[in-house]
Amino acid sequence: MASAALKDELDIVIPTIRNLDFLEMWRPFFEQYHLIIVQDGDPSKTIKVPDGFDYELYNRNDINKILGPRSSCISFKDSACRCFGYMVSKKKYIYTIDDDCFVAKDPSGQDINALEQHIKNLLCPSTPNFFNTLYDPFREGADYVRGYPFSLREGVPTAVSHGLWLNIPDYDAPTQLVKPLERNTRYVDMVLTIPKGTLFPMCGMNLAFDRELIGPAMYFGLMGDGQPIGRYDDMWAGWCCKVICDHLGLGIKTGLPYIYHSKASNPFVNLKKEYLGIFWQEEIIPFFQSHIFSKDCTTVQKCYVELSKQVKEKLGKVDPYFVKLADAMVTWIEAWDMLNPPNKDSANASTK
Amino acid sequence: MASAALKDELDIVIPTIRNLDFLEMWRPFFEQYHLIIVQDGDPSKTIKVPDGFDYELYNRNDINKILGPRSSCISFKDSACRCFGYMVSKKKYIYTIDDDCFVAKDPSGQDINALEQHIKNLLCPSTPNFFNTLYDPFREGADYVRGYPFSLREGVPTAVSHGLWLNIPDYDAPTQLVKPLERNTRYVDMVLTIPKGTLFPMCGMNLAFDRELIGPAMYFGLMGDGQPIGRYDDMWAGWCCKVICDHLGLGIKTGLPYIYHSKASNPFVNLKKEYLGIFWQEEIIPFFQSHIFSKDCTTVQKCYVELSKQVKEKLGKVDPYFVKLADAMVTWIEAWDMLNPPNKDSANASTK
Repeated sequence: MASAALKDELDIVIPTIRNLDFLEMWRPFFEQYHLIIVQDGDPSKTIKVPDGFDYELYNRNDINKILGPRSSCISFKDSACRCFGYMVSKKKYIYTIDDDCFVAKDPSGQDINALEQHIKNLLCPSTPNFFNTLYDPFREGADYVRGYPFSLREGVPTAVSHGLWLNIPDYDAPTQLVKPLERNTRYVDMVLTIPKGTLFPMCGMNLAFDRELIGPAMYFGLMGDGQPIGRYDDMWAGWCCKVICDHLGLGIKTGLPYIYHSKASNPFVNLKKEYLGIFWQEEIIPFFQSHIFSKDCTTVQKCYVELSKQVKEKLGKVDPYFVKLADAMVTWIEAWDMLNPPNKDSANASTK
Repeated sequence: MASAALKDELDIVIPTIRNLDFLEMWRPFFEQYHLIIVQDGDPSKTIKVPDGFDYELYNRNDINKILGPRSSCISFKDSACRCFGYMVSKKKYIYTIDDDCFVAKDPSGQDINALEQHIKNLLCPSTPNFFNTLYDPFREGADYVRGYPFSLREGVPTAVSHGLWLNIPDYDAPTQLVKPLERNTRYVDMVLTIPKGTLFPMCGMNLAFDRELIGPAMYFGLMGDGQPIGRYDDMWAGWCCKVICDHLGLGIKTGLPYIYHSKASNPFVNLKKEYLGIFWQEEIIPFFQSHIFSKDCTTVQKCYVELSKQVKEKLGKVDPYFVKLADAMVTWIEAWDMLNPPNKDSANASTK
């Protein structure tokens, strides 16, 4: 119902499909949508997409051609390249999912339509300014409880819907190594707004967002080929998005929907990708927790460029990587604005 | 298991028992604990407690006798009087429950041992400084997810466990009037820490706390007889506790356990009690959201007295009620320290 209404307003972005069962399994839920596939590796290899799907596919050569020198901001040989798909989309909403994520079942045994739940989450307001103990007050059968200030009950627009994973939990390498057999079997029937001022670990496996509201901040950074870290792409995007949403009065929800995460990635490979991030994160988190935007930051782009300056100045001391990342953040915004000219955006907005 | 271990460390505080079935229903779970019953109304009426329960009962005459002139801080003819029970208890933990709350069933049809879950919540740390998307990382089958800073994984001591209610939700009078038939039927299998810096509506229906950590801030204010408002007793305590926990590095959890809330209170009566609070709350929330404690505030008592001064200064402008409340907050601390001499507390602590 809600999902049908958004047929022409949502693109699904997938960062390479290695698993041919993936799209077949999602066919009933995805076939009506347009897919944007961003191939993360060797551009000479061909990705087979089953018949019946409406899709466009970008490999590294395409990215280089479209962005020119600005393509340096898009990661190579890493699923972080998916953010190129966010940039070339012309739709209001994006859903991104990994190719090892399958359809999960709810406790009654029914297949979960993850996309439909994300759309529900995005279409109703968030409540970042005060915690509601019955969680999302806009859900059927729920409301604001006694003591919730009436002036805050309109909520704020929802920019991001962060979905979860049954089976293989999204653990870091050390936790994977310590708990190789742990599986997430608990279905928590709940959606909540992450409160204002609170950071969270945003996972890109099962994520939807409103690209008109927050798209330019959904940059997955520099990972993979030639970079010292990996597996912090979605985290970086999450921390940037969260501080910008807090500043601009937008909301981020987490909880439902679940997907079924089928396969744990190799913890030894992951440790190699993560270990610098594990150190750096101890500086990154206090940086984001204490960040305050100036009053001039009235758009996502302005916030993001100002943030990049602070990243260079404050995190550049931690490692030269952050100087490079800060430059890439600016390049990303230039590339975004090139593909999404501000005039066109506002023209789009005015026709709605 | 956990609950048996705390047999001698927890008191159950109940603000008057009107319903004789109440204790019978809870007998298997409560009988091993000591009960403190604080009678909220006419002291000449007798409360019948079934055989087999170990209890002490306080009526208004007892409160007046024990506290002398300081008894003015304890509400009369309102369940807010329960906080007297927190003060006279000599145990480390308190569980407080209303007499219209019965044993709930989990989705498998089993009776929920609410107290056991509260004890679990209180005995493992809270995580207020960063949001974990799989919720309480200390729960079996869960952990911290990728991207959660390692330096924050020890967590902080848990001071409060806020439980929820199936059946009749804890709505304010306007919502009760608009949605008379709404019932909470969703069992959300989850406990989480309310993030630092975020306020929440703390309900006193099904609440446990560590009185050594936060007891002196668990004051339920001036409600009922002779006071202009009601139904903000637990809310007030919750806001005070939250800002003090945030300042002192303590945690507050919400979620499981559920009780079955059997009876909606009269929305017309509630509206009369609440309406001034509904206005005042719009000033109270920004007051708490912007409150910062001085560095001298190293104990709950010091925080609470400093908070009372700010209440008088800033909320006293909203209504003279807050001047009276601020004075009562100081009286409460004097009474608390009279019944819980600091020396004795530290002596207790040192023998553990």
